[in-house]
Amino acid sequence: MSRSNSEARASRQSPVLHEEDSSQSMYQLIRKLYPICRSLTGDGVRETLRILQEYIPLAIQSVPTGTAVFDWSIPKEWNIRDAYIKNSAGEKIVDFQKSNLHVLNYSLPVRQKISLAELKTHLFTLPEQPEWIPYRTSYYNENWGFCLSHNQLMALTDDEYEVCIDSSLRDGELTYGEYFLSGETDGEVLVSTHICHPSLANDNLSGIALAVFLARALAAEPRTYSYRFLFTPGTIGSIAWLSCNEARVGQIKHGLILACVGDRGKITYKRSRRANAEIDRAVIQVLKDDGAPHQVLDFSPYGYDERQFCSPGFNLPVGCFMRTPHGKFPEYHTSADDLEFIDLRSLADSFSKCRSILDVVENNATYVNQNPKCEPQLGKRGLYGTVGGLAEGRQQELALLWVLNLSDGSHNLLDIAEKSALAFAAIKKAAADLLKHGLLKPVI
Amino acid sequence: MSRSNSEARASRQSPVLHEEDSSQSMYQLIRKLYPICRSLTGDGVRETLRILQEYIPLAIQSVPTGTAVFDWSIPKEWNIRDAYIKNSAGEKIVDFQKSNLHVLNYSLPVRQKISLAELKTHLFTLPEQPEWIPYRTSYYNENWGFCLSHNQLMALTDDEYEVCIDSSLRDGELTYGEYFLSGETDGEVLVSTHICHPSLANDNLSGIALAVFLARALAAEPRTYSYRFLFTPGTIGSIAWLSCNEARVGQIKHGLILACVGDRGKITYKRSRRANAEIDRAVIQVLKDDGAPHQVLDFSPYGYDERQFCSPGFNLPVGCFMRTPHGKFPEYHTSADDLEFIDLRSLADSFSKCRSILDVVENNATYVNQNPKCEPQLGKRGLYGTVGGLAEGRQQELALLWVLNLSDGSHNLLDIAEKSALAFAAIKKAAADLLKHGLLKPVI
Amino acid sequence: MSRSNSEARASRQSPVLHEEDSSQSMYQLIRKLYPICRSLTGDGVRETLRILQEYIPLAIQSVPTGTAVFDWSIPKEWNIRDAYIKNSAGEKIVDFQKSNLHVLNYSLPVRQKISLAELKTHLFTLPEQPEWIPYRTSYYNENWGFCLSHNQLMALTDDEYEVCIDSSLRDGELTYGEYFLSGETDGEVLVSTHICHPSLANDNLSGIALAVFLARALAAEPRTYSYRFLFTPGTIGSIAWLSCNEARVGQIKHGLILACVGDRGKITYKRSRRANAEIDRAVIQVLKDDGAPHQVLDFSPYGYDERQFCSPGFNLPVGCFMRTPHGKFPEYHTSADDLEFIDLRSLADSFSKCRSILDVVENNATYVNQNPKCEPQLGKRGLYGTVGGLAEGRQQELALLWVLNLSDGSHNLLDIAEKSALAFAAIKKAAADLLKHGLLKPVI
Repeated sequence: MSRSNSEARASRQSPVLHEEDSSQSMYQLIRKLYPICRSLTGDGVRETLRILQEYIPLAIQSVPTGTAVFDWSIPKEWNIRDAYIKNSAGEKIVDFQKSNLHVLNYSLPVRQKISLAELKTHLFTLPEQPEWIPYRTSYYNENWGFCLSHNQLMALTDDEYEVCIDSSLRDGELTYGEYFLSGETDGEVLVSTHICHPSLANDNLSGIALAVFLARALAAEPRTYSYRFLFTPGTIGSIAWLSCNEARVGQIKHGLILACVGDRGKITYKRSRRANAEIDRAVIQVLKDDGAPHQVLDFSPYGYDERQFCSPGFNLPVGCFMRTPHGKFPEYHTSADDLEFIDLRSLADSFSKCRSILDVVENNATYVNQNPKCEPQLGKRGLYGTVGGLAEGRQQELALLWVLNLSDGSHNLLDIAEKSALAFAAIKKAAADLLKHGLLKPVI
Repeated sequence: MSRSNSEARASRQSPVLHEEDSSQSMYQLIRKLYPICRSLTGDGVRETLRILQEYIPLAIQSVPTGTAVFDWSIPKEWNIRDAYIKNSAGEKIVDFQKSNLHVLNYSLPVRQKISLAELKTHLFTLPEQPEWIPYRTSYYNENWGFCLSHNQLMALTDDEYEVCIDSSLRDGELTYGEYFLSGETDGEVLVSTHICHPSLANDNLSGIALAVFLARALAAEPRTYSYRFLFTPGTIGSIAWLSCNEARVGQIKHGLILACVGDRGKITYKRSRRANAEIDRAVIQVLKDDGAPHQVLDFSPYGYDERQFCSPGFNLPVGCFMRTPHGKFPEYHTSADDLEFIDLRSLADSFSKCRSILDVVENNATYVNQNPKCEPQLGKRGLYGTVGGLAEGRQQELALLWVLNLSDGSHNLLDIAEKSALAFAAIKKAAADLLKHGLLKPVI
Repeated sequence: MSRSNSEARASRQSPVLHEEDSSQSMYQLIRKLYPICRSLTGDGVRETLRILQEYIPLAIQSVPTGTAVFDWSIPKEWNIRDAYIKNSAGEKIVDFQKSNLHVLNYSLPVRQKISLAELKTHLFTLPEQPEWIPYRTSYYNENWGFCLSHNQLMALTDDEYEVCIDSSLRDGELTYGEYFLSGETDGEVLVSTHICHPSLANDNLSGIALAVFLARALAAEPRTYSYRFLFTPGTIGSIAWLSCNEARVGQIKHGLILACVGDRGKITYKRSRRANAEIDRAVIQVLKDDGAPHQVLDFSPYGYDERQFCSPGFNLPVGCFMRTPHGKFPEYHTSADDLEFIDLRSLADSFSKCRSILDVVENNATYVNQNPKCEPQLGKRGLYGTVGGLAEGRQQELALLWVLNLSDGSHNLLDIAEKSALAFAAIKKAAADLLKHGLLKPVI
């Protein structure tokens, strides 16, 4: 960090957390996006990104079908207008207009009459949750199919059925959104979220809404770091971004993948591949300071787009912030992940935690005690109580002593919070007070 | 360590622990010192140090008022002759002659008549322990006040009171005691204890008495290390010593702060800021070998004078040896920390543990196995049993095997005791036996 | 490892575990060896080694009495033909022909009549197990004696006894067996076991049999490493081998001492002195993958011949594989460690575990992901399921992702198995599959 940035940070007021009623606003955005049939590519993604532009000045990027992105190739663009199964009486017994989950995502167009036996080879259900429609995809293997509730399947009689999928799979483009907020330094914080799922609310309209409102809050404040928000289709989208921006990834100092942040579960944080990157420690500090139940998982190469950012050729310090992880709630990838599954208090809590995490990252400077031999006399500066002999140190005085004791140039404020078991906020305030009295200087 | 010292240590007999009846002697010293009104400065401290000179040839050092010591300045010298509160009937209802805790330590002189309401702004009590007088100070903020039991306060009626504090606060000096015992090497072991408290027995007449009798015991024996005993007023005293002796602190190889070593609680050791310095490991080894309940605390920048010795500009390997820590016993800083609060067996145990700790430090040499390829044949040297086939190794034979196996030049005897889970005494004896048979050589 | 070896390993099929009915075969060998009176030296050892030559082409090595081996000297050779105690009625009350444990191993020849009182100074019993004969030795202190059950001792009356030990202790030689199996590389895996015990089945005919049948299995397969099997008398035998082969020990990359591998207890592994050598981690991985109860002990310089291989002048990566450790089963070093004490399922399990351990060591290569930026597209290579959206990753797909993610040149397959918590077999298969598709290359 350059000298001027560091001093700017040091003298700056802590950002005022001027929150709008964020959970209501996030929920309204989720409601607006919920009906759209998204996929890896196509009009649904474009419509989604256009709606996000009403909130933040998002750049919409596109990559043509067939473009090589590392080991992959951008697939054909998929669009769908309608789909149904009719019985011989002409009744629509499965109807895409009622739920876009009914179609195997990326299905080829089809229109034919077939027997029940043949139809069944194209149907997907969830026997263990017989009322829910599963969400299934076939991106990279050309196929067609329908997803329906197991009860619907059980009710099918031996009949001739008309199946219609009015879709197209043609050369086109992959589309994603990118929003860059420049800060005092070129170092970037990446916030990335996947946008490829159709009508699934927690996975991942919650992540999209959280990213949008984090971006709005950060845009209104001074920032030490620059911030890059990505709204990409899962896997292929982050691979495309990395392929197109390979020269730039060295600027990424910290990153968070946001996914499934609106359910009632406790917060789950999955560490980056580096395991103890500053972002990992910042998240854990915030979760510890808050005190609510939470879990921290080691990195594993399965999950969301951290798989790509943490591939060994990049190994970026990017962790994944979730509530209940993928596959660990019964509603996961089913029609039950709907608007009612979203909990407003959880959304607000996810927002607040992410704000605190970024506050740690923004303020985690290293200072040097300017009076390293013995303690400075805090009392004469009004920083210490005047009556001696009490049994307990006062919390904020302890924070001052910890910051002084560990500000030897090799501990940053996060190190000090960890070692002292005090909240980051107390350590940050102590550093600000000591700085004001000339007892600390930032490491340049 | 130089060659000659190392060899001297290696060939020397283990020091004979020729203990006087130490706990009785320590207790007699505590009784003698108890009535004196000590403070940061003044006649009480000087009288205390003169009494200690009856036991050890202590040098009494003084630093004039106003001397700059790092960020601090030596305060004015405080002396007091008398103090009381009289009611309108002329009865002394609070009397310094009965307990020197009754005066807020460092009170300005005062003599006036005041109402109950005004008086109350100068009174300190402990509502949760209504029969005890609290100990309070106002060293660095000019003020006056009285400390009394909460019951006394409750009994005060709406009356006119005469308050008298016959004290003086004038330019003078800060006084401390220093006793240096030279050893075979220039490396020093520091033992420091605070002497500024008035009539409080455990905090810290117990620490003073323990330091005095440790010094007497060490003076009677050969010593590898030199020893420096400091008897200083808390905080400002150690800051003054460090300021006056800055060039010398590099000689301090190990250090212990002694405080509150006479209560019935288990032993508490607080690690140095280095966390795993040799002194830290020596203390923990002794506590583990002994097996009695104890606790080991991580370093924190609050407590006793380790705060100064472990400030980042010094970062000396100095830990704090206590029984119940400051603030963790109800009698702490109250009139209940009196002569009856001291337990003679605890005093004796603190003495014995400190002796063992210093024995570890004195004997913790590194040796090199002179027969490193395969085991040497211990049997032909009479170091091993002659009948084979028994199920268990004998403890002292195991100690021999451990010392041989780990004496590769990178493990000292404390390392070996830790790895083997054997007592340091067994490891030390094994090393001595192997040395006698030429199977080890000291690292020079 | 050289380029060609590494590539050979990479392209080779996993060794087919073509097990003969190993536990029955091992037990037959144990039965054959059980009656022989072995010792440090002498005909019993030679006869034992000749029997082993029926199974593997063992070289029999000898070292003459008086040869200096490091700090030791090869002892005289001991042979025994007969021994007994007769009472005054001429009845043999203790008879070597009934159990070779009856003689203190290495007893001097004796033939005399003595009183009960004098006889008792030469008798060894186990009062806590009054029906069992203890096993005792006096290798390095010239003595004679008998071992008998405590009940036998109690039945002795005040009589004159005739004692006869028809033994000889003369210049001769120490004998051991060595079997070297060359592999693709010069790096060696050492498997060593002690052969000096007379009629004790678990300690250590079980270890001898296991080593023999491991050697047979390995001889039938391609091997990356060379293998050296040692069958030596305890302590002096391994010291003699190390002394005669000092220039060669640098080739030893991994080693296992085998002892007490046939009892019903769970497996115990004692780490090498290096604590986390590859062999230590390989054993622990196999025990964890298997899931059965087991224990892992830290290194200590007491036990079997790991004492010599792990002496500080060698510090070889040699651990000890046992079931119940020495001294931890009541039958240890008594006549109750007989043929019935051996459990065939335990023998088979010890064999199978050792095979798996050596399989880990043989296959623990390091590979480099050839597509390190983002994941490669596994689906187009048929390595990944085609329908997306399922809640759980499939185990073998997870193994592929883990191998890809960690194959950055600094993790070998054992590292990956440890970090992923997947079985080594799954990781090994994933690496083979990825290698086949050109997605990995071995580190050369």
